[in-house]
Amino acid sequence: MTPPVNGDNRAAVLHGPGDVRVERRPVPEPGPREVLVEIAAVGVCGSDVHYYEHGRIGSFVVEHPMVLGHESSGRVVALGAGASRHAVGDRVALEPGVPCGNCRECRSGRYNLCREVRFFATPPIDGAFANYVTIHEDFAFALPELVSDEAGALMEPLSVAVWACQKASVSAGDRVLVTGAGPIGLLAVQSARAFGATEITVTDVNPHRLALAERTGATQAINVAELPLEDTGVEADALIECSGHPASLQAGISSLRPAGTAVLVGMGPEEEGVVPLALIQNHELWLTGTFRYANTYPAAIALAANRRVDLESIITAHYGLDEAEAALRAGREDPTAVKVMVMPASRAGQT
Amino acid sequence: MTPPVNGDNRAAVLHGPGDVRVERRPVPEPGPREVLVEIAAVGVCGSDVHYYEHGRIGSFVVEHPMVLGHESSGRVVALGAGASRHAVGDRVALEPGVPCGNCRECRSGRYNLCREVRFFATPPIDGAFANYVTIHEDFAFALPELVSDEAGALMEPLSVAVWACQKASVSAGDRVLVTGAGPIGLLAVQSARAFGATEITVTDVNPHRLALAERTGATQAINVAELPLEDTGVEADALIECSGHPASLQAGISSLRPAGTAVLVGMGPEEEGVVPLALIQNHELWLTGTFRYANTYPAAIALAANRRVDLESIITAHYGLDEAEAALRAGREDPTAVKVMVMPASRAGQT
Amino acid sequence: MTPPVNGDNRAAVLHGPGDVRVERRPVPEPGPREVLVEIAAVGVCGSDVHYYEHGRIGSFVVEHPMVLGHESSGRVVALGAGASRHAVGDRVALEPGVPCGNCRECRSGRYNLCREVRFFATPPIDGAFANYVTIHEDFAFALPELVSDEAGALMEPLSVAVWACQKASVSAGDRVLVTGAGPIGLLAVQSARAFGATEITVTDVNPHRLALAERTGATQAINVAELPLEDTGVEADALIECSGHPASLQAGISSLRPAGTAVLVGMGPEEEGVVPLALIQNHELWLTGTFRYANTYPAAIALAANRRVDLESIITAHYGLDEAEAALRAGREDPTAVKVMVMPASRAGQT
Amino acid sequence: MTPPVNGDNRAAVLHGPGDVRVERRPVPEPGPREVLVEIAAVGVCGSDVHYYEHGRIGSFVVEHPMVLGHESSGRVVALGAGASRHAVGDRVALEPGVPCGNCRECRSGRYNLCREVRFFATPPIDGAFANYVTIHEDFAFALPELVSDEAGALMEPLSVAVWACQKASVSAGDRVLVTGAGPIGLLAVQSARAFGATEITVTDVNPHRLALAERTGATQAINVAELPLEDTGVEADALIECSGHPASLQAGISSLRPAGTAVLVGMGPEEEGVVPLALIQNHELWLTGTFRYANTYPAAIALAANRRVDLESIITAHYGLDEAEAALRAGREDPTAVKVMVMPASRAGQT
Repeated sequence: MTPPVNGDNRAAVLHGPGDVRVERRPVPEPGPREVLVEIAAVGVCGSDVHYYEHGRIGSFVVEHPMVLGHESSGRVVALGAGASRHAVGDRVALEPGVPCGNCRECRSGRYNLCREVRFFATPPIDGAFANYVTIHEDFAFALPELVSDEAGALMEPLSVAVWACQKASVSAGDRVLVTGAGPIGLLAVQSARAFGATEITVTDVNPHRLALAERTGATQAINVAELPLEDTGVEADALIECSGHPASLQAGISSLRPAGTAVLVGMGPEEEGVVPLALIQNHELWLTGTFRYANTYPAAIALAANRRVDLESIITAHYGLDEAEAALRAGREDPTAVKVMVMPASRAGQT
Repeated sequence: MTPPVNGDNRAAVLHGPGDVRVERRPVPEPGPREVLVEIAAVGVCGSDVHYYEHGRIGSFVVEHPMVLGHESSGRVVALGAGASRHAVGDRVALEPGVPCGNCRECRSGRYNLCREVRFFATPPIDGAFANYVTIHEDFAFALPELVSDEAGALMEPLSVAVWACQKASVSAGDRVLVTGAGPIGLLAVQSARAFGATEITVTDVNPHRLALAERTGATQAINVAELPLEDTGVEADALIECSGHPASLQAGISSLRPAGTAVLVGMGPEEEGVVPLALIQNHELWLTGTFRYANTYPAAIALAANRRVDLESIITAHYGLDEAEAALRAGREDPTAVKVMVMPASRAGQT
Repeated sequence: MTPPVNGDNRAAVLHGPGDVRVERRPVPEPGPREVLVEIAAVGVCGSDVHYYEHGRIGSFVVEHPMVLGHESSGRVVALGAGASRHAVGDRVALEPGVPCGNCRECRSGRYNLCREVRFFATPPIDGAFANYVTIHEDFAFALPELVSDEAGALMEPLSVAVWACQKASVSAGDRVLVTGAGPIGLLAVQSARAFGATEITVTDVNPHRLALAERTGATQAINVAELPLEDTGVEADALIECSGHPASLQAGISSLRPAGTAVLVGMGPEEEGVVPLALIQNHELWLTGTFRYANTYPAAIALAANRRVDLESIITAHYGLDEAEAALRAGREDPTAVKVMVMPASRAGQT
Repeated sequence: MTPPVNGDNRAAVLHGPGDVRVERRPVPEPGPREVLVEIAAVGVCGSDVHYYEHGRIGSFVVEHPMVLGHESSGRVVALGAGASRHAVGDRVALEPGVPCGNCRECRSGRYNLCREVRFFATPPIDGAFANYVTIHEDFAFALPELVSDEAGALMEPLSVAVWACQKASVSAGDRVLVTGAGPIGLLAVQSARAFGATEITVTDVNPHRLALAERTGATQAINVAELPLEDTGVEADALIECSGHPASLQAGISSLRPAGTAVLVGMGPEEEGVVPLALIQNHELWLTGTFRYANTYPAAIALAANRRVDLESIITAHYGLDEAEAALRAGREDPTAVKVMVMPASRAGQT
């Protein structure tokens, strides 16, 4: 390994709820078939914010200092032993979860359900709010020139949306209902359009987000604070539930055509929830949920490179690595914030 | 149409809750492409009992006198205009729901979800507790000699079980959990075995039914009054929920492997119910339900004719048509009763 | 039925190879649940030309005078008994094949494989080169204002393309190879794009058609008279074979990734053909073919109404009904001709 | 690693066409997460015979001495570093191909199509005609007591048959046609039955094999030397082609119902072959092929342990390791031979 890196690796480390510190850490050494990546852009995800605010998500508890951030892109700066897929200098998007590759789930193509997956910014694995990270070369995906660093980082949430569309079997001419217009909901709208959906209804209570959804592909935006979904007569082939609100889930399922599919993407407040079981039976509906994604990066990159999705449209602010804590707070403080980016390689402050 | 029928058509007519009367009715005339069938055997279904006891099932209300019974077989005795699929004398099983054939659901192969379906013993359509009924020739299926009249009638509940296995994609080597060992649950056990499942766990609180399940294909029978399913360590590829009990549904879903499928067959007491949403997401489970069945009769008959299922094993009593009311009461009065048959063409009483 | 029609019904009738005569015929009476449609636009299909030139297609022989044309749209001018889906005046696209609705194929959702289907311009059923035709109301689909009469007629070939994409499971980010850039190939390119394909390679030997393909969605157009497909390094997830050329089929299959799918749409010159069987095994490829389509009209109309396809782009000429024979000859005589329309309701000549 | 092995490792090594020598080799050391297995039983496969007779199969050429045999079972005798799935003493079946786990095919669950797979007895990888072999612990599958050593070895060809049934989506009540009643065809018959098929037609020209097929699940056996398949009126939902004969493939495809599936398992003599393309189109048939299998061992073992298949029924002879060459010749010399076993751990000669 040639060492073209300058040796200065900072990372935004979560020490406990509300306690993020920018610290110097050694530049990691890429292991066999790994690459060392200089991070260019990292998106702030709701899960990062949740760890920052609560120090845990369900049974995942931050017990030791951990670097946040799992939506990232960067530039390959060194290769580990046997790594041959990328050259130094390649721009790449990082798929942040590396599964074991051998277990029943991995062998069946469901590697997102691998119990031994090592996933960025999920305790105890460090994430990408840093200057340098290492990753298995097969989980770094080359970015075409047309895809910016920020868009490259957003291959991760776009993968969530693509995966949801795949689970819902969204196809040309479909009618899709997306409940919740946060970053994932907005990307679900764009993805549904890219999958060929021609009628895309989105619901939320935030008029900024509804307006943005309409500008980026939704054919109908409903503010459910003013008009209940039940009163709209919407019938959908697929529901992509991105709000985590129990009421949205129920109303959404009730809007499905016979044999339609509901996909849970947003996480609700409770382990359990109420669903219209009689309707699921009488109309033979399908209900499932997504946990991350599998095999989505190539499609996500192709959609971005071909302008079938517009990832920049959801970016509302950029922060430097030193401002990571401000970036984690931005969503709470600004109702117009959607996707906030941290740019570790940039000296620039908030834009 | 040659009239080989003797003109004496009796029917067991439900006039209101608890009020079934055996009455003479004209022998019906088969319409175009219909056949007239002399009914040999009719199974008593839980829905018949529910109509008998309550006069309604949900929004389906018996407002006018209605003949019960929809699990039936018999002998073709006359052909309507243009009917050519059967000959007079053929023994047939009757698929009791005739859909419109033109709507979106019908055209998509989901004819069980047709809104215009005319289904036996569902208001206002008369059923098969009668000497003679008519049906479209394409919904009468020839029975091989090896399949008895009673087994022919039970092609209907067997279809429910086959459909559930198809929805759950049960295949060779699968591990299937059947919650509830009533007639449908017992047939689900047998069907799962016929679909190649090698590990079939059944749960109930009735030891008679659990013992019968073990004799007919279950590899493990759990009395959940004594041992909660959660304590058994069962992991299943598919859940076929036949009890309608909310607790069974939740425990059953929690027993699924990642990416497993739960199929609701039993109807619960409420329109809505609680399910483990976080688990559905984290394990990407699939939940669906069945409403009757579609395209199952040929497979059901083939399974019966090839002894892959043993329908006689679940029959616990036979009644004459005059004893229809006693047949409707048998299930409540005898904990060992499973499937009770009405035999309109027989003079014999209870056996 | 109110008779708002003027009673003047002309039709272009094929009497034998090369013998088309425009004749007056009685305005047909719509039967139960049928509608009477005044035809506005009819596309000329290769099968029309084949019947015109040869009097037969395989085992389908024109033994009695027959009206050609099966890609049509028009205006509802009268309703048969019980027809309630449309109002007089509605603009509709006509799905030209009405299946029996009851057979095994129909019940399974594969109504395009119904043996009793009555299909326009397939002996002995008359087609739509006429002022008036009748059709079952459920096979007339309302057209939004945004969809022109010509585009409405082209819902039929678009359905062929949509069906091919569905068979090939084309989805977002896919790489699709379309061999043959005739009207169907061109619509397959557009459809693949509408289904989300991001890499669409098209092959042909006609530079006009290749250029048109590139203008309407192909990302790469290869003139295989100059550059064999094998030399291009193309790897595709799906092949949509629209040329009917044996060499294209073989080269196309050989371009598939492991587990890819080849769909035969173009009809070859022979009943049998050579395929790379060892490759199909070693790469576990899938090969299938399409016969018409099923359940595609709603999606096709939605794609047209939402500008996901541009049907006008392939129309190269319009003819009046009296010029039907010229329209049938246009393709042979002009290498730049793609889709030629007959406009029965228009007095205008060729445009 | 504790060394409970006696250090005496013999192997039957192919040096060239017709040249197999039993040689002493060092006992291999299990690597990280590998296990060392003392081989109990190895089935002789047609590919072993082909390498023995020709020194190559297509582009796979035996350039250096290679141990044959890939259908094997045995007993774990030592564990490599980090191996924890098995204990010393466990009886296991060996899945003979270990894929890379990271490539596109592996991640998609199609690890059988991995280009970097290391597969027993495929140049340059040694096979299992030996006393000891090593394998990744996740590709050794524990055998229940009910499954004999020989049956354990036959999990490999049974996997081929199970995979074919999965590709063909064989399900309860299906009608399956198996062309060719060699070892794979016979196991396809048994598998089809285990998957619920109720009508299983088998064809061959060898009366011994046809009789064996009938004893083990075929409902109809046709000697196509006497009666062409075309004359039998057989209609099948699925074809499993196990003969490699071009004529069988064509006749088999022609016997499929509309929308049926043909699966190529037997390898034909040529890279290319003729298929009825017009029929594939007009009936929308599906044609695919199998290359080994993926994720089949658990199901195969469950079927054997539950007596849904009878593997002993196809075993016609046993040989010691020193008699490996005789075992490789047995099939050619005896028309009644079906599956021949080599038993490395046994001193016994031919039985």
